[in-house]
Amino acid sequence: MPETLTVTPADVVAARARIAPYVHRTPVLTCRSLDGRIGASLFFKCETFQKVGAFKARGAFSRLLLLTPEERRRGVVAFSSGNHAQAVALAARTLGAPATIVMPKDAPALKLAATRGYGATVLLYDRREESREAIARTLIEKTGAVLVPPFDDDAVIAGQGTLALELLEDVPDLDVIVTPCGGGGLLSGVAVASKGVRPAVRLFGVEPEAGDDVRQSVARGEPVLIPVPDTIADSLQTTRPAERTLRIIRALVEEIVTVSDDDLRRAMALLASRMKLVVEPGGSAGFAAVLAGRIPRAAGARIGVVLSGGNVDPELFGRLVAGVPA
Amino acid sequence: MPETLTVTPADVVAARARIAPYVHRTPVLTCRSLDGRIGASLFFKCETFQKVGAFKARGAFSRLLLLTPEERRRGVVAFSSGNHAQAVALAARTLGAPATIVMPKDAPALKLAATRGYGATVLLYDRREESREAIARTLIEKTGAVLVPPFDDDAVIAGQGTLALELLEDVPDLDVIVTPCGGGGLLSGVAVASKGVRPAVRLFGVEPEAGDDVRQSVARGEPVLIPVPDTIADSLQTTRPAERTLRIIRALVEEIVTVSDDDLRRAMALLASRMKLVVEPGGSAGFAAVLAGRIPRAAGARIGVVLSGGNVDPELFGRLVAGVPA
Repeated sequence: MPETLTVTPADVVAARARIAPYVHRTPVLTCRSLDGRIGASLFFKCETFQKVGAFKARGAFSRLLLLTPEERRRGVVAFSSGNHAQAVALAARTLGAPATIVMPKDAPALKLAATRGYGATVLLYDRREESREAIARTLIEKTGAVLVPPFDDDAVIAGQGTLALELLEDVPDLDVIVTPCGGGGLLSGVAVASKGVRPAVRLFGVEPEAGDDVRQSVARGEPVLIPVPDTIADSLQTTRPAERTLRIIRALVEEIVTVSDDDLRRAMALLASRMKLVVEPGGSAGFAAVLAGRIPRAAGARIGVVLSGGNVDPELFGRLVAGVPA
Repeated sequence: MPETLTVTPADVVAARARIAPYVHRTPVLTCRSLDGRIGASLFFKCETFQKVGAFKARGAFSRLLLLTPEERRRGVVAFSSGNHAQAVALAARTLGAPATIVMPKDAPALKLAATRGYGATVLLYDRREESREAIARTLIEKTGAVLVPPFDDDAVIAGQGTLALELLEDVPDLDVIVTPCGGGGLLSGVAVASKGVRPAVRLFGVEPEAGDDVRQSVARGEPVLIPVPDTIADSLQTTRPAERTLRIIRALVEEIVTVSDDDLRRAMALLASRMKLVVEPGGSAGFAAVLAGRIPRAAGARIGVVLSGGNVDPELFGRLVAGVPA
């Protein structure tokens, strides 16, 4: 483990102890017919069953549990395409802090409704014209609230990594772990945690083809800014990783691979028809990469696949999988 | 327990020992937001995660494990709208028996493909013009194969009941158990098993409004034949219960209630959006009845809800839940 990384395996262990009373230990499911199709043993870590329907609950509780009493009184602010928003809203309500969430106008209806349902104040913005960071900053200057970044934060990263500790307890001899990758918070947390427990494990992050900011950034050696990507994976529409997540990914992750929207739709349809799971487009990116043959030397391997979230309107879900050969 | 019933709690215990190596112990899931909405504590027995995606694997293995070597050599025949077909096909392949399945031409594509995928020979018939019983009978006369009925069989009923033993081990203090009801095999098995373990539990079966043959039969005191019901719940399109299942249901079940197709769609949409579960229309009938307020004195109760199957084409699933307010 290079010393320059800002998150250590011990930080993940500490985060796990902190958040354990507030989040679910999610199940690891298997499917013999998918194993046969892929020619590998797949272990699906189902964060779809996590609080708020996505792994983001881990990072949000991890960060909010470190607020001082004074900070908690002033409250928290977050900007998010959805799952992080719900997670911060839930954690804030649970811990007694006011929360304001800056969300894009085109976020899925289910995510907007859920965020408001958790009692947060929602500020809407236009994803293509306004800067959510600027909006949040103005608010913070006015109210003194604490910003909870979706991935550029060590406590958030450590929180996301806790799922890898659970996964490797359930399946200690994994050869590979594949996770979806937006800003890299999940991937870097999983990387720190799993390399700490099992140094031999090979790690892969999966981005949408249209939104490969992390892949480009790894190649360039510094964060690359891309236009807002056009993809069905709304939870992976980040435009730039953080220095912090990029450093961890470069040190510990074998490769960032990409999948097309059709790869995502095929993965969603198979997860529904074979495993009876509702997984959102971005949440199925890990499995989509395995299915599309993007993971080197996957044949015969024992592969942990993170299904990172399930927050998709049922109607949209139906439209996305319509006509996909299962 | 009236002495006249042909299936006893001990039969269910024996079936459980017999089938344990071949079927999954399925998880019981809970959802705080649905509990809040209903005003009760719901415990979902997820047979969607069972082998072949439905509880039918239990009954099929229970029956096929009783075949003599000679019977196994001659093979088995089944007629089914789908899930029973897949279950018999899987059990037959697993145990080394040839299987022929008589299926309606309009069965869901996913179920037809899965049945063939398990290596069974499929004979298609027209649900509105031909008698599947007659087709199966002709075949049996020709080949000497053993008929495996979907519900009119004690070993099948005992097999289905095994899920109630698991449910009551996980949640011993249930007040109510609600299960979907087609021909009554699941309901009668669950009734025998759960009354044996917990006599105070109240049992409800749920039929589609358009297909209330069991409700009518309970009222009449003998099996009533109805026309093929028009409902989205393809797995509950039975037209008459058996004497055998009706006798158990009359003795042990508090009430048969019904739900509309819209009730089913609303239940499916909520199970997808809140619990990330793909449940087929008939499989969601138990939850639909709870949601629609059809279960007497449900408020405050601890309710076991059997989600009996998840075999629905993802595209059809999307169409069914489209526009349902979640």
